Amino acid sequence: MTKVGSWYREDKSCEFTVWAPSKNSIEVKVLSPQKLTVKLQKNKEGYWHGKVSNILPESIYLYVVDGNLERPDPASFYQAEGVHEPSCIINHSSFQWKDQDWKGVPLEEMIMYELHVGTFTQQGTFDGIIQKLDYLKELGINAIEIMPVSQFPEGRNWGYDGVYPFAVQNTYGGPEKLKRLVDQCHQHDIAVILDVVYNHLGPEGNYLGDFGPYFTRKYKTPWGLAINFDDNNNSGVRNYFIQNALYWFEHFHIDALRLDAIHGIYDFSEKHILKELAEKVEGHSQREGRKHYLIAESDLNDKRIIEPKEEDGYGMDAQWLDDFHHSLRTIIAEDKRGYYCDFGNIKQVVKAYEQGFVYDGEYSEHRKKNFGSSSQHLEPKQFVVFIQNHDQVGNRMMGERLSQLVDSESLKLAAGAMMFSPYIPMLFMGEEFAAETPFLYFISHLDAGLVKAVQQGRKKEFSAFNWHGEPPDPFDRGTYLQSKLRWASLEDQRHKDMFDFYRKIIQLRKSLSSLRTLTRKGLSVSWNEKDLLVVISRSCGESYTCCYMNFSKSEINATHANQIREPMSKVIDSADKKWNGPGTLSPDVVSSSSEININPRSFILFKK
Amino acid sequence: MTKVGSWYREDKSCEFTVWAPSKNSIEVKVLSPQKLTVKLQKNKEGYWHGKVSNILPESIYLYVVDGNLERPDPASFYQAEGVHEPSCIINHSSFQWKDQDWKGVPLEEMIMYELHVGTFTQQGTFDGIIQKLDYLKELGINAIEIMPVSQFPEGRNWGYDGVYPFAVQNTYGGPEKLKRLVDQCHQHDIAVILDVVYNHLGPEGNYLGDFGPYFTRKYKTPWGLAINFDDNNNSGVRNYFIQNALYWFEHFHIDALRLDAIHGIYDFSEKHILKELAEKVEGHSQREGRKHYLIAESDLNDKRIIEPKEEDGYGMDAQWLDDFHHSLRTIIAEDKRGYYCDFGNIKQVVKAYEQGFVYDGEYSEHRKKNFGSSSQHLEPKQFVVFIQNHDQVGNRMMGERLSQLVDSESLKLAAGAMMFSPYIPMLFMGEEFAAETPFLYFISHLDAGLVKAVQQGRKKEFSAFNWHGEPPDPFDRGTYLQSKLRWASLEDQRHKDMFDFYRKIIQLRKSLSSLRTLTRKGLSVSWNEKDLLVVISRSCGESYTCCYMNFSKSEINATHANQIREPMSKVIDSADKKWNGPGTLSPDVVSSSSEININPRSFILFKK
Repeated sequence: MTKVGSWYREDKSCEFTVWAPSKNSIEVKVLSPQKLTVKLQKNKEGYWHGKVSNILPESIYLYVVDGNLERPDPASFYQAEGVHEPSCIINHSSFQWKDQDWKGVPLEEMIMYELHVGTFTQQGTFDGIIQKLDYLKELGINAIEIMPVSQFPEGRNWGYDGVYPFAVQNTYGGPEKLKRLVDQCHQHDIAVILDVVYNHLGPEGNYLGDFGPYFTRKYKTPWGLAINFDDNNNSGVRNYFIQNALYWFEHFHIDALRLDAIHGIYDFSEKHILKELAEKVEGHSQREGRKHYLIAESDLNDKRIIEPKEEDGYGMDAQWLDDFHHSLRTIIAEDKRGYYCDFGNIKQVVKAYEQGFVYDGEYSEHRKKNFGSSSQHLEPKQFVVFIQNHDQVGNRMMGERLSQLVDSESLKLAAGAMMFSPYIPMLFMGEEFAAETPFLYFISHLDAGLVKAVQQGRKKEFSAFNWHGEPPDPFDRGTYLQSKLRWASLEDQRHKDMFDFYRKIIQLRKSLSSLRTLTRKGLSVSWNEKDLLVVISRSCGESYTCCYMNFSKSEINATHANQIREPMSKVIDSADKKWNGPGTLSPDVVSSSSEININPRSFILFKK
Repeated sequence: MTKVGSWYREDKSCEFTVWAPSKNSIEVKVLSPQKLTVKLQKNKEGYWHGKVSNILPESIYLYVVDGNLERPDPASFYQAEGVHEPSCIINHSSFQWKDQDWKGVPLEEMIMYELHVGTFTQQGTFDGIIQKLDYLKELGINAIEIMPVSQFPEGRNWGYDGVYPFAVQNTYGGPEKLKRLVDQCHQHDIAVILDVVYNHLGPEGNYLGDFGPYFTRKYKTPWGLAINFDDNNNSGVRNYFIQNALYWFEHFHIDALRLDAIHGIYDFSEKHILKELAEKVEGHSQREGRKHYLIAESDLNDKRIIEPKEEDGYGMDAQWLDDFHHSLRTIIAEDKRGYYCDFGNIKQVVKAYEQGFVYDGEYSEHRKKNFGSSSQHLEPKQFVVFIQNHDQVGNRMMGERLSQLVDSESLKLAAGAMMFSPYIPMLFMGEEFAAETPFLYFISHLDAGLVKAVQQGRKKEFSAFNWHGEPPDPFDRGTYLQSKLRWASLEDQRHKDMFDFYRKIIQLRKSLSSLRTLTRKGLSVSWNEKDLLVVISRSCGESYTCCYMNFSKSEINATHANQIREPMSKVIDSADKKWNGPGTLSPDVVSSSSEININPRSFILFKK
């Protein structure tokens, strides 16, 4: 394993390593504050290596390829001036970490919170997030998931157009500020999950191809050239991405990585790159004595992704469970557009609770094929669930959150359905106070042709999906600014109540062991198709809870579905006046003979 | 499983089935001898179905797609007039089979013979092959492998540009004559292996895209659009190719399929199409009570291809072992061009004998990556070996056979090295008499632009690989004619002697159980790097043989490598005067203390 990048040493030297297997010469050209050029030496694996003495940290440099082409470092740690400018040396030893006592948060205990640095706060920086950590802690969040921070063009981007996987976005604050954020998170008992993109690189500022065969034309992704994980001359590419994962763990103390759209990682090698990555991360965790997690976003419903490495799986610790979202979403918001057409039956909600994947080999109308494999044998703690996320909100033409589409009773029901599931819950920033700002798609590429292509592409896409009207211009600064969370909303009692409601259900999940323990053992689901009633019973040792969820728009009598074992007490009714609901219909204590009535679009949680 | 195509019934009706999932109407338009049009009905899986009564076999028809587009049947059984013309109805029940007693040849007993219909005989037809069956039988061949016969444009093609997977090439004689050939082969105790192409379709006359999503842009093959085995809307595509495999077994009595370049079959589904195919073929074999085999051509050195389905393998019965060829070839012909650069060490020959894959995770200089997995645990009978094949000959610029590149002593050594290996041997047509006609690349597309592209492509390819001069024009009829085997050569004693030599070594392989039994048990290989000496000892029960092979160009004394257990008799010395060699140097009977001397480039086989 070769460490790539420019490594600043205690003795004020800097070691440079770059992979360029078929090039004839590589020089490092330091531009400032000194000016000097040093030839690198090539080893048999195609890595060029050299050491420059007496150099200052934060020096800026370029590589000169074959004597004429000047390019930033593919493994640049910082692009202070943006994607087209020289790279900047970083001294990774200089940061004073204060998280020595940090033990991490076990994956199964995480309450995740997905956020986008630029729009989470007005500042749009890592420092901005730090100011919200007390708030997040009060809410009960113990893991933030940061959308990608690898350097992208200019300042406005979701992060999936990053072109320097190792360089932390300059406008967010760069590497130093990310370290500070992680350090502060850990001191607030909050883990940090970083979203990383290993399936493509963005279209602007991507100079990797000038160094080596990082890309292959054998496969195609919807987002750009596929990364060369299995074609000829791939060893430096595989190493580059594995090094990238380890880099975040080692130098930024990141706790887990969320791997973006792994269905765009094409690898027919006998050992899939994800499996190799899982092995290397496991080795690192063992050396460090602290577990680091890999969480995949996967559109494949393929059990192999999260099956153990020993059983021919890729060994990812967990993956996002889209089927859970889609099942709930189509019932709650009655949306049937696009891939939602495969969902909308309450039995799918039940299956998602009981088994995970809803499509486990069944015919999918949207995909027009039999799709998926069963995940019934896999632990619920291997799935992350959500009722909103950046994609499900942002890929709507107008970027509406669920709060802009359904009433607040439905919102609370959806929140409970997620929080009392046996899966790891993830909120999307602002969801906890029913934020009403949209999360739109925005970019700020410098290449005008590219901007135009993106603008036209989005128009076309939405018109193909029968959306009416025109999408907001992704390049317009206003589109970005509109997407920033409006924190002032919290002064409004309605939003404040929603925050309190979320805080309450998070606290319940953490305090009741039947809700906290993520196993299929002790889980039973009953339902009534006509009434859209789902009852989830969960037990763990002495702890027993029962959650009645009425997905219909009518008040229902759920006595026939009585799962009450002995006198149980009502823990929370989402329809309670306290949460701005119409008022509970259930007594505080119920027995197996009690009448149970539930308001439209609400849930009642009972505990023994 | 839906049977596609036009099925002629006893009652003089014909049932038509075609997959066109997103079309609004499909009609069958019979053009001759009657004229009529019948609307087909669509089922929920996207298949259109209909029956036409009172129709003659050999009627010609088209499909009318959405009321205006007239196209041949994607599953046409016969394109009597070529790729751009209407399809022809075939009555598959009319052929009178006479092979009722045929029991098949077990894979591990096969002596294969690869042939190209067009150039194997002057006629260039299936009938032409029939006239050679006595000859092949005399040689000892018990399985012919026919290069692809699916309809391609005009008459000159290797077969990999086929565009109607179910239609037998008209210029070869069409479906009836192929049946006759198979029937005759079976009566000559010869099995028939058919080469089929499931990784792409040819560039001319491919109208499948007008019916449905047969292709995907997600992947790219070097030969054309990738087939949609795993993208949306793939069920009709998977079925189409599975039906194709079963079609050859059921209606043509084919014994085994050779699956062309399966590394171009991209399928990330949980169940790979090859695995599904293996399951379906197994089911068919069970119903029929006769085993049908699947043999993959694979460039992946991936053990999963031939591992059992139950152990997460794809369950192919066997695969071609390119590493065996390359190891031997580079020693024998001292060629280091292209991918041969990864070979040339005698230890690789030894590894190929002992383990199968030479590259089992090692770094490949040609591929610039670590490559392959170990096949040591797999049975030798799962590998097909050769010292020449259509690619290794035809992909040379001048299409030279090994006989045109090395002397006849080397040829005999190579032949023995193959025949006495623990693998299934395969000859390339004419190899047995050291044919000196080249096997060139030829095409006869009608599309002039395409022809030009192919011509230029080949020029470019060869110049990139440092071949000097210009390749013969693939479109020139002379290139094709030149490639036809010159059977008159057999009147020449030198060629006749080579034939006798091949017949002898085949007969030895069949008669000695140590040579016939394809297991690693009882196999031991010793070697001497300096002398390029390899000694293969094989035992099975009482049968024990020892083959001394001298790959060097000097006479060597192999006493130091003595593997003689007890007095053993010399079975054959390739350097014998009988085979036009310089004369044997070994006594007829040897013991453990005997001096063993071997001529340059020759082998001696001893048996107990």
